[in-house]
Amino acid sequence: MNNFNCPIPHYQEDVITLSHGSGGKQTSDLIENIFLSPFSSEEIKKMHDAAFIPSIGRSIAFTTDSFVVDPIFFPGGDIGTLAITGSANDLAVCGARPIYMSSAFIIEEGFLQSDLKKIVASMHQAALSQGIQIIAGDTKIIERSTGKNIFINTTGIGVHMVDVLPEPYRIADGDLIIISGDVGRHGMAIMAKRNDLQFANPLYSDCAPIFPMIENLLENHVELHCMRDITRGGLATSLVELSELSSKHFIIDEELIPIAKEVESACEILGIDPLFVACEGRFVLFTPPKYKQQVLDILHSFETSKNACVIGHVDVRKSPSAVLCNSYGIERPLYKLYTEQLPRIC
Amino acid sequence: MNNFNCPIPHYQEDVITLSHGSGGKQTSDLIENIFLSPFSSEEIKKMHDAAFIPSIGRSIAFTTDSFVVDPIFFPGGDIGTLAITGSANDLAVCGARPIYMSSAFIIEEGFLQSDLKKIVASMHQAALSQGIQIIAGDTKIIERSTGKNIFINTTGIGVHMVDVLPEPYRIADGDLIIISGDVGRHGMAIMAKRNDLQFANPLYSDCAPIFPMIENLLENHVELHCMRDITRGGLATSLVELSELSSKHFIIDEELIPIAKEVESACEILGIDPLFVACEGRFVLFTPPKYKQQVLDILHSFETSKNACVIGHVDVRKSPSAVLCNSYGIERPLYKLYTEQLPRIC
Repeated sequence: MNNFNCPIPHYQEDVITLSHGSGGKQTSDLIENIFLSPFSSEEIKKMHDAAFIPSIGRSIAFTTDSFVVDPIFFPGGDIGTLAITGSANDLAVCGARPIYMSSAFIIEEGFLQSDLKKIVASMHQAALSQGIQIIAGDTKIIERSTGKNIFINTTGIGVHMVDVLPEPYRIADGDLIIISGDVGRHGMAIMAKRNDLQFANPLYSDCAPIFPMIENLLENHVELHCMRDITRGGLATSLVELSELSSKHFIIDEELIPIAKEVESACEILGIDPLFVACEGRFVLFTPPKYKQQVLDILHSFETSKNACVIGHVDVRKSPSAVLCNSYGIERPLYKLYTEQLPRIC
Repeated sequence: MNNFNCPIPHYQEDVITLSHGSGGKQTSDLIENIFLSPFSSEEIKKMHDAAFIPSIGRSIAFTTDSFVVDPIFFPGGDIGTLAITGSANDLAVCGARPIYMSSAFIIEEGFLQSDLKKIVASMHQAALSQGIQIIAGDTKIIERSTGKNIFINTTGIGVHMVDVLPEPYRIADGDLIIISGDVGRHGMAIMAKRNDLQFANPLYSDCAPIFPMIENLLENHVELHCMRDITRGGLATSLVELSELSSKHFIIDEELIPIAKEVESACEILGIDPLFVACEGRFVLFTPPKYKQQVLDILHSFETSKNACVIGHVDVRKSPSAVLCNSYGIERPLYKLYTEQLPRIC
């Protein structure tokens, strides 16, 4: 922003044009100038039609996610950080170490190359910090609508760390339900930025890798029956989905769910239930009660999961569902998010 | 189209809304109603965060591509056929059998569910015909602009069929350059449809899988030094890229390049050079001269490569480049496509 509070004109060279998607000279230039240096894996440099992955010798996890978050830069991250972290987290909750990733960009004509560079730098940083190699890529350019849109797909490959994988069908009666931290930060950080809300304690996205915690839990032989990272639809939708997939009954103690004050305030102002708000660095796990202290000790040793706590348990009674229980013993069923309260949150 | 040439009103239920991207109930319904039945792999049905792939025991190829073609339905295919075939072809030219694929959709609010069903059916058909399993997926909804946009990312995993892979660095002096069919059909079919051009012989996209031909060549122990499928940027851009990557000099006989009459006419009308026009079912291959007849016999036994022919050779002299040579012996260098003549062709 300059002092006159008007947009600084951008030189023509800084703008993405349809020619950058031609597959010709300008596509090569864009790849060379923006992607090759940060995404410097040998495979990317080869510019071949497909990347080579040596024989892995174990089963692998495979996941895909497209990111359309708006705004693309937000407190605590940007669409680039999110794109790498989101897909890596999906692999991690399946008990896999994220190792390879593809990244495919759809960019609107008029988008600034300088913004693209920032996003690519974030992706590079996020991948590097988790030991992920970006080995395949693609770029397409579409006609201008607002000139501000960029969509990123990341598809990840992870190597399974254990033979018996965490899966919904393994959720067992009596399992404790543990959450790795407070919920709703990511969604409310996006909404606050979009609505220009100001708080005394500014709201940051919780966007962060969860593999380090999961790696530690698995290496310490904790029996993890199931894990899920909480994204779109929030904690409530995740729990309902898992109760359906496992055909189990979950009882959640409403008062144990950690929610930051600033998230609660923002939710109140915007009329949103925090249990349905997306996170990008939180997960729930299901483990037998005997592992309770070990799990909490491990999670508390990481900054991003220092507020991990038990929020409920799997109950023997009744049909598959997830219910919230308050201090008066009153129960109400959780349900999946029905309408879209927060579009383009990830 | 009805008899009055005006749009038929669509019931509300047929339209994609932002709620379909919430991650909640309506997302589940969309997945269940549209994706689950055609993409009926066990892994997709599990609705887990990542799909499980058993240990493969060989090196694998990994590729990603996003598809933004406009119009989404065109003579000879649609964006769904293209999304599966395009990524499968990228794996095939790397000597890999396509086996697993992810598909991620970004859909505009207002898009018709009935159109989405058609596209998904095409993807299912294209995957089934090539023995590809779609095992991971994602759906995001963005705000309406024209209401007609859909973008599909497919990321594919293939298993290498041979130990010594076809790669640009293996291109050798004296190699023959063979093309699997006539060029430019896909790009001109899209452009003709976009510009409402009518021809006596209607123009169809060449969108088709190339793995069957490559499988046959590899199983018959043909020495394939390098292959590339010709997409954005056309034959010319592919040849220039390969000459750069291999540091070799290619001489192409201009008069040997097969171009259909209807493609030539359409190119003339629109002022486009067919050598820069995208194909979606053609590839060039580099092989020592002794395999010439065997390669041509195999390619000619397939309907989609019945017009395969030699178009040039790798010459010992000079610096890396690709030149076109005509019947008068006059040479002119090929170059990469510079500006965008055909946006959103794939």
